[in-house]
Amino acid sequence: MAIKVHGSAFSIAVMRVFACLNEKGLEYEFVRVDMRAGEHTKEPFLSLNPFGQVPAFEDGDLKLFESRAVNQYIAHAYADKGNPLICQDPRKMAIVSLWMEVEAQKYDAPAAKLTRELIIKPLLGMSTDDAIVEEQEVQLAKVLDVYEARLAQSKYLGGDSFSLADLHHLPTMNYLIGTRVKAVFDAHPHVSSWCADILARPAWQKVVAMKNNQRL
Amino acid sequence: MAIKVHGSAFSIAVMRVFACLNEKGLEYEFVRVDMRAGEHTKEPFLSLNPFGQVPAFEDGDLKLFESRAVNQYIAHAYADKGNPLICQDPRKMAIVSLWMEVEAQKYDAPAAKLTRELIIKPLLGMSTDDAIVEEQEVQLAKVLDVYEARLAQSKYLGGDSFSLADLHHLPTMNYLIGTRVKAVFDAHPHVSSWCADILARPAWQKVVAMKNNQRL
Repeated sequence: MAIKVHGSAFSIAVMRVFACLNEKGLEYEFVRVDMRAGEHTKEPFLSLNPFGQVPAFEDGDLKLFESRAVNQYIAHAYADKGNPLICQDPRKMAIVSLWMEVEAQKYDAPAAKLTRELIIKPLLGMSTDDAIVEEQEVQLAKVLDVYEARLAQSKYLGGDSFSLADLHHLPTMNYLIGTRVKAVFDAHPHVSSWCADILARPAWQKVVAMKNNQRL
Repeated sequence: MAIKVHGSAFSIAVMRVFACLNEKGLEYEFVRVDMRAGEHTKEPFLSLNPFGQVPAFEDGDLKLFESRAVNQYIAHAYADKGNPLICQDPRKMAIVSLWMEVEAQKYDAPAAKLTRELIIKPLLGMSTDDAIVEEQEVQLAKVLDVYEARLAQSKYLGGDSFSLADLHHLPTMNYLIGTRVKAVFDAHPHVSSWCADILARPAWQKVVAMKNNQRL
């Protein structure tokens, strides 16, 4: 197979790429990286991603990393396959790009910190820091206030159709909705409906099933 | 004029958009936002950017925010004007996107924190926190180690040509090169040459001149 994703099925960045590949209906090989053994911090992995983070991605001789860049590549290079995740019109695409940047610059920091405290640290036998959880819930709520106003006007963040701007939220959303942070999402009715909608997508459910079938 | 940029000429995100508009040779109206008076945290500015941050951008009836999304729009919508800042080939563009993500996800955090401590806080009469400076210099150096290896193989981050991946670094680079952090850049010879090259671009020099002609 031409497409390979190197990483762990528990990684939010790896799940982001799987979700995109599934939306496009593309086949790929999952190359498991043993992160508990630190394989991502050593060669040969560092030749694929010099920052030592998963995922690393290959499509034939093209080698990429950074999950959001990988997904933009997939969405553009395989524009004619599966579900469209971008727009061809530059003005419509600008709105999608704007909300992709909002996810990366505003939503991701509190969502990733909450996922680390409430999911990853317990998985690794470490203790959750409640002060960080409370602080980051406040930050996340501020971001979701803006999302609530947006989603009152627009079915999806980037416009009328599901796009990468929505998809990039799925991994942390999926983890957090199973924790106390669900209350933060649920305090925003349009956000809550949007979460239920995008989490139910078959492409995403395949990612969840894959994670659930893996050992840590 | 159709294009308007709302913000402060001292803001790194605003300067990023000015640099892109200048590379494209586009005319634009600069609408000054008095950030010391908190104009960005109130209406009518919040209608342009609900997060209350500069810049906000208008091109006719299209309203955007998030500087990196604005620049992607400009580069795509005005692809035939001025200097090309993106690639049409999806595989080449994937490499540009990868390094754009690296800037946003890896370089920007230490660079922006250092700019805040060493430039913005002194401008506002606040004290620099030396512990933050030392910690962030270490983080920046780790990122520049990866850049050094990349720039030993490639003239620019995204490939043979200057692109948005390089341009997005300019505002913090320009500020930091005038501080003690210059030594961190200079410890990386290929990075240092790249900085000198991109800082000398006429489009960037126009941004610097504009800032120097503004009151805070």
